[in-house]
Amino acid sequence: MSNPPVKFKKDKEIITDYETQVKEIRAQLVEQQKCLEQQTDMRVQLLQDLQDFFRKKSEIEMEYSRNLEKLAERFMAKTRSTKDHQQYKKDQNLLSPVNCWYLLLNQVRRESKDHATLSDIYLNNVIMRFMQISEDSTRLLKKSKEITFQLQEDLMKVLNELYTVMKTYHMYHTESISAESKLKEAEKQEEKQIGRVGDPVFHIRLEERHQRRSSVKKIEKMKEKRQAKYSENKLKSIKARNEYLLTLEATNASIFKYYIHDLSDLIDCCDLGYHASLNRALRTYLSAEYNLETSRHEGLDIIENAVDSLDPRSDRQRFMEMYPTAFCPPVKFEFQPHMGDEVCQITAQPPVQAELLLRFQQLQSRLATLKIENEEIKKTSEATLTTIQDMVTIEDYDVSECFHHSRSTESVKSTVSETYLSKPSIAKRRANQQETEQFYFMKFREYLEGSNLITKLQAKHDLLKRTLGDGYRPEYATTRPPSLPPKPFGTQRPRPRSVFNVKLFNGNLESFVK
Amino acid sequence: MSNPPVKFKKDKEIITDYETQVKEIRAQLVEQQKCLEQQTDMRVQLLQDLQDFFRKKSEIEMEYSRNLEKLAERFMAKTRSTKDHQQYKKDQNLLSPVNCWYLLLNQVRRESKDHATLSDIYLNNVIMRFMQISEDSTRLLKKSKEITFQLQEDLMKVLNELYTVMKTYHMYHTESISAESKLKEAEKQEEKQIGRVGDPVFHIRLEERHQRRSSVKKIEKMKEKRQAKYSENKLKSIKARNEYLLTLEATNASIFKYYIHDLSDLIDCCDLGYHASLNRALRTYLSAEYNLETSRHEGLDIIENAVDSLDPRSDRQRFMEMYPTAFCPPVKFEFQPHMGDEVCQITAQPPVQAELLLRFQQLQSRLATLKIENEEIKKTSEATLTTIQDMVTIEDYDVSECFHHSRSTESVKSTVSETYLSKPSIAKRRANQQETEQFYFMKFREYLEGSNLITKLQAKHDLLKRTLGDGYRPEYATTRPPSLPPKPFGTQRPRPRSVFNVKLFNGNLESFVK
Repeated sequence: MSNPPVKFKKDKEIITDYETQVKEIRAQLVEQQKCLEQQTDMRVQLLQDLQDFFRKKSEIEMEYSRNLEKLAERFMAKTRSTKDHQQYKKDQNLLSPVNCWYLLLNQVRRESKDHATLSDIYLNNVIMRFMQISEDSTRLLKKSKEITFQLQEDLMKVLNELYTVMKTYHMYHTESISAESKLKEAEKQEEKQIGRVGDPVFHIRLEERHQRRSSVKKIEKMKEKRQAKYSENKLKSIKARNEYLLTLEATNASIFKYYIHDLSDLIDCCDLGYHASLNRALRTYLSAEYNLETSRHEGLDIIENAVDSLDPRSDRQRFMEMYPTAFCPPVKFEFQPHMGDEVCQITAQPPVQAELLLRFQQLQSRLATLKIENEEIKKTSEATLTTIQDMVTIEDYDVSECFHHSRSTESVKSTVSETYLSKPSIAKRRANQQETEQFYFMKFREYLEGSNLITKLQAKHDLLKRTLGDGYRPEYATTRPPSLPPKPFGTQRPRPRSVFNVKLFNGNLESFVK
Repeated sequence: MSNPPVKFKKDKEIITDYETQVKEIRAQLVEQQKCLEQQTDMRVQLLQDLQDFFRKKSEIEMEYSRNLEKLAERFMAKTRSTKDHQQYKKDQNLLSPVNCWYLLLNQVRRESKDHATLSDIYLNNVIMRFMQISEDSTRLLKKSKEITFQLQEDLMKVLNELYTVMKTYHMYHTESISAESKLKEAEKQEEKQIGRVGDPVFHIRLEERHQRRSSVKKIEKMKEKRQAKYSENKLKSIKARNEYLLTLEATNASIFKYYIHDLSDLIDCCDLGYHASLNRALRTYLSAEYNLETSRHEGLDIIENAVDSLDPRSDRQRFMEMYPTAFCPPVKFEFQPHMGDEVCQITAQPPVQAELLLRFQQLQSRLATLKIENEEIKKTSEATLTTIQDMVTIEDYDVSECFHHSRSTESVKSTVSETYLSKPSIAKRRANQQETEQFYFMKFREYLEGSNLITKLQAKHDLLKRTLGDGYRPEYATTRPPSLPPKPFGTQRPRPRSVFNVKLFNGNLESFVK
């Protein structure tokens, strides 16, 4: 042959290669078992950490809950004894800031209860779930390992079978080669013998000729035998090789199946329910946390409503109702006729008429001037009040910025000091506010003085006007008899007392008196 | 007159009545001052309570924050050293349960930070506001009291004025009555004198007559004088009464104004900004709480996403990538030609052809039976798996009921123990689950055994089929020379190794090797 001599692999070499390959696989199989164990160990460790974590968090929540409860109780106890609380129990009608205060305490109690519930759910539900998942993982590992072990045993059997058929192939192939060479040798001998037989035979002895013929026959017989042997071995070798090839195919398919399908299935067996149960355990935690949040939010909304309802007007009303003896207007002063004086009205007959008329006119013009002046003061006062109200209703309460978390888990900004206005700025603002307040009080006082004077003069003016008649026509004033006076102001406009009472007690005067 | 004699009120009586009425008003004015003080005291007390409350709550929040921080730190420290964490830092690719665990720790840190922020806002913002409101209340009370005092002084002046004009009226009315009676007396005397002068005068002496005439003149003069006095006093009395009536009107108007308008204004002065500032202080608290809640919610949503992403498949993939030496399929076994054997394919020539054909047919029918059998087992196994999956995905994690608050603040149901399934029920459920699991493993094992056998036989069957030719037409099989064999299965279908690698390392084999 023209091909360069190929180094044929011998039995030993092939077997060694095979054994190396099998050894590697065997090492992998052991490694796989270890990996499954390690995975379960990690899981059990994680589940243990989760249990420890929630046990500790449960303690923290319980402590927090107890502290909140103590805080609420401390102020509740203090409050329960107050007059406000007695009132509250009676008519549920509190001053709006006190109402906020009560709701604040209620919210703390609510938070306390909710965190206790959270603690309880951690301890008696979430942790229990993690414990069970841990048990499950351990049990599933055990079962999965059993199956893995069997699959690996089966795989080793397949590899052993390959070994066996390969050896058989080697054996029969060796025998086939040996038979072939023996056959070839026989063929060579036969050729040599036939060559001798074909020599010119006339100088050969008959005896010798007979001997040679017998030898050729012998060689032919041997060749035939060797030919049969070779054919037999050749067939055996073919069959062994076929078997080897088929087993090789089956082995590779088995290995492929094991690595590609079975290993995944085995890992799935270890996982059976793990993610789903973990999901449920964590969802229990989430459910508890979300519900705590919802409850907290509801409570805060109640407080927000109460804050929205902070109302100076209704509180003033309620405050005055709380002290009726101090704020109920007195009976008005009545005219007391002296020693049976029968005249109880202004006398506007001629002797004093002109003087009263003059006085009325003077009052009228003075009032006009005073009212204009006081209206100016009132405007200034009201504008100042508006300024103050703008100052005290400035929306400076948003603290969102303090709660911004950066995406990175490592750094969270500490922006509290930045967001709330700096102290010098607050001081300045407060000084400004107090200055404005000062000015307001000054103007308000001026206005009160003015309006008090106006009230007095107006009362006199109005009485004179009524006495002197509409449009102070003197001719009427004189002809009207003093015994038919205009009605007193008490009946002309609603009496202050009754007006006041209606406003003050809201029709509940009877119940108040009782 | 036919009227029964009316008891006229005398000076003293009227003055006593007046003084009683004024005394009552004065007592009310004192009471009003006290009420304003008391209201402010209550406010200052409430604001003090609020400060104490938030100071204590700030402490509680800080302690809670520290405990949460410690909790997170404890497990973070433990985690940072693990292989997972190193891996996480490298490629951020974690097993999904470990990812949940990290986010859980992050959430605790976030809560810790947020409660620290809350504590800080209480201490440095909310409490400061209450302190300032308290200062403001005290200052406003002082100013309001000044104005109140002045208004009350003015009111007392008005009442004094009323007293004065009333006394003047009494005086002039008394004088008027006295002058009237004197005039009447003079008139009587005059009548008597005129009667005498009208007597028959002839028996009266001239001297006497002159004396009488002079007496009459005297009486007339006196009468005229008294008449003038009476008119003068009568006018004074009218004017005094008119003044009294006007002052009475002015007094009542002033009292009305004070009680109905000024008192409200004075209370408003005390209130100036109180409700608005309280509103802002409480809104700061609410803003902090709502923001804490939002942050908490965001954190929980991140965890919920991670819980949604709990995925056994990708985890299995990642697990196998973590241990490539264990799970990477080995090189497939190749045909090793023995001693230069040049045939490396199945030989299907006549001597073995019939036998192979028979074997192929047997394989084919055996496979058909085995597949039907194994398909049945597979179905049972899969149905059992579905049952288990239903068991482990039961939605039993809603704990809303535990957080129901009754409207009453006093009683909150303790429903925790009721809502989570009772322990016997859980035990039963778990026993049932494990039984099903047992059955599943049994069936799955059967299925694996069957499929392993099928894989082996199928590989042999397929190789024979390829060797014997499509539709195993023997005439073709014999004519096809062994030197042109069908391609080996490795190139006919994708080689298992490469298939596996593509699945396993997702094209990142290079980076994995590095």
